Amino acid sequence: KAAASAETVEVEPEAKEAIEVVEDGEVKTQDAAADDEKDIRPDFEALVLRVQQEICDAISGLDGHKFRVDEWERPNNRGIGKSCVLQDGNVFEKAGVNVSVVKGPLPPAAVSQMRSRGKPLREGAKPNFYAAGISLVIHPHNPMAPTVHLNYRFFQVEDPETKEKSWWFGGGADLTPSYLFEEDAVEFHSALKAACDKHDPTYFDRFKKWCDEYFYIKHRKESRGIGGIFFDDLDERPANSVSRKDLTDREAIMAFSKDCLESFVPTYISIMKRRKDMPFTPEQKEWQQLRRGRYVEFNLVLDRGTKFGLSTPDNARIESILVSLPLTARWEYMHEPEEGTEEAKIMDVVRNPRDWAV
Amino acid sequence: KAAASAETVEVEPEAKEAIEVVEDGEVKTQDAAADDEKDIRPDFEALVLRVQQEICDAISGLDGHKFRVDEWERPNNRGIGKSCVLQDGNVFEKAGVNVSVVKGPLPPAAVSQMRSRGKPLREGAKPNFYAAGISLVIHPHNPMAPTVHLNYRFFQVEDPETKEKSWWFGGGADLTPSYLFEEDAVEFHSALKAACDKHDPTYFDRFKKWCDEYFYIKHRKESRGIGGIFFDDLDERPANSVSRKDLTDREAIMAFSKDCLESFVPTYISIMKRRKDMPFTPEQKEWQQLRRGRYVEFNLVLDRGTKFGLSTPDNARIESILVSLPLTARWEYMHEPEEGTEEAKIMDVVRNPRDWAV
Repeated sequence: KAAASAETVEVEPEAKEAIEVVEDGEVKTQDAAADDEKDIRPDFEALVLRVQQEICDAISGLDGHKFRVDEWERPNNRGIGKSCVLQDGNVFEKAGVNVSVVKGPLPPAAVSQMRSRGKPLREGAKPNFYAAGISLVIHPHNPMAPTVHLNYRFFQVEDPETKEKSWWFGGGADLTPSYLFEEDAVEFHSALKAACDKHDPTYFDRFKKWCDEYFYIKHRKESRGIGGIFFDDLDERPANSVSRKDLTDREAIMAFSKDCLESFVPTYISIMKRRKDMPFTPEQKEWQQLRRGRYVEFNLVLDRGTKFGLSTPDNARIESILVSLPLTARWEYMHEPEEGTEEAKIMDVVRNPRDWAV
Repeated sequence: KAAASAETVEVEPEAKEAIEVVEDGEVKTQDAAADDEKDIRPDFEALVLRVQQEICDAISGLDGHKFRVDEWERPNNRGIGKSCVLQDGNVFEKAGVNVSVVKGPLPPAAVSQMRSRGKPLREGAKPNFYAAGISLVIHPHNPMAPTVHLNYRFFQVEDPETKEKSWWFGGGADLTPSYLFEEDAVEFHSALKAACDKHDPTYFDRFKKWCDEYFYIKHRKESRGIGGIFFDDLDERPANSVSRKDLTDREAIMAFSKDCLESFVPTYISIMKRRKDMPFTPEQKEWQQLRRGRYVEFNLVLDRGTKFGLSTPDNARIESILVSLPLTARWEYMHEPEEGTEEAKIMDVVRNPRDWAV
């Protein structure tokens, strides 16, 4: 068993930001009745573990290689995780699918940061946190096939004195092709839109926009990919929500996360089947490698989860954090594709994000 | 002419740190007579431009390919630069040799950060800065040949009201082999030690230690390479300095920087001649690629100059900053070399820095 961390579920941004700027001291009061609601943690853990297995089975089925599985534990009963990695397969260069369930005392810096984000935590409280999630990054060999990232997580904080709990969901999925196939972009976004629309008419547009903003490589003035959805701090249904009325907010948002998560396998496998055996030239492979370089730049320079993980190596399972990096990448000085080429076409999309869903 | 920045001389860490922790408010008083000293800026600029040419000639001579030269200007007479890059040559995968000379008003955040570092700046002053330097990173193709980084810079700040100036030098050179050749490590360090010893008996040991500390990849618990020297804020001679007594401190430290800088070409060319044509296996090339991945991690996650440059894209010439990245790199999940191998030997050195100079 390996050393462990929560980074694999990308829950750490919270803690990292605590030592950064506190923007707003206002504390929102969450419905106190939430305390009496059904504990969804066992269901959420079962969900992410089941889907992790389904994703690994689907990816492995397409590739022919098996995943290496590392189960790890944090000392003092502070959590468990399962890292599944398929490296240098027939179809995939690297595929990492992680689940982790971690808990423990929330650092004071994280407490004040969460208060600033509107979490109803008492000043001076020493809350315990719980975080569970699934996270994946998949890099195919074929430059016509897109890289994909996905993450869904549930976070809960409990005041040990008042027993008051606050909770929220975060997550999303986003696609990073080296070459643009509009058919893939439309299929990926439409599946997510369908999952969103089952729950709330505002979700998809909000979360697509959030995705474009979050995965923006500032120093390159371009997005990492062509979009998807991204959300965080989701802890109540909007007023015009269309999800089942017999569910609590917590159950309803879990159902939403579940629908998004379960849309992944059919969509990505469908895209991969179209792309994995397409012919390509050495020049196209090289272009993919340059785009992989940008992926590395985003993950190492900007991604909040990765940055936090790397800044706290003693608490982190570094190998699970960095499994998101591609097997290979390339950086050329002053490379810019010629106008009118397929390479220029994808650059135009990452510089000017588009709506794809139908 | 391209958009421009000071990043190419790695002078920006100052400004970046200003928004980080201020450790110590004490302000040191620098000798006011410094104002009347000879202006060394023209000599320093001439030095770095001459040596840039010599380095490019030497590297180009070994490689057979020529450097691409981009001269750039910052708007409003705020500086000039010359970026020389040789990419995908016969011997070198990527070699970037940059000179820049930049000036302008120092941002308020940088002022308070510099005061905290002991620079004699008045509170509320709006000083102008001047920064000149040479910076290079060279990545050879052959995995037996080491990557090298070098940077020497002169920084000056002037209070526009009192006309008081403060100034300092920074710089160093460090070697990053994928395979350990003790002969190379000894030659590289001994040349730097000889240059240091001509000026002060304490320099080499201090600056080797500083180098090991600065180029440490915290999240990997290993150094980027096997060392060299690194110094910053150097603005006076130690008491037992052995440099020429007829020189001012400023001239003496410039002479020291010059000796270090001029030791580079003979040393690195000598090492490269031994390594550039050595036979190697595909496995050894792959190991080099993994070590290149670590280089990328250091530069994108930890290097202060790179981080600052990437966080201020509008002031930065991004291509000059990121020319330090290798052409190609690789990340494998859970890779660890077997005990007793040559790969394990270099890991032992980066985990336990050694003294090499004789």
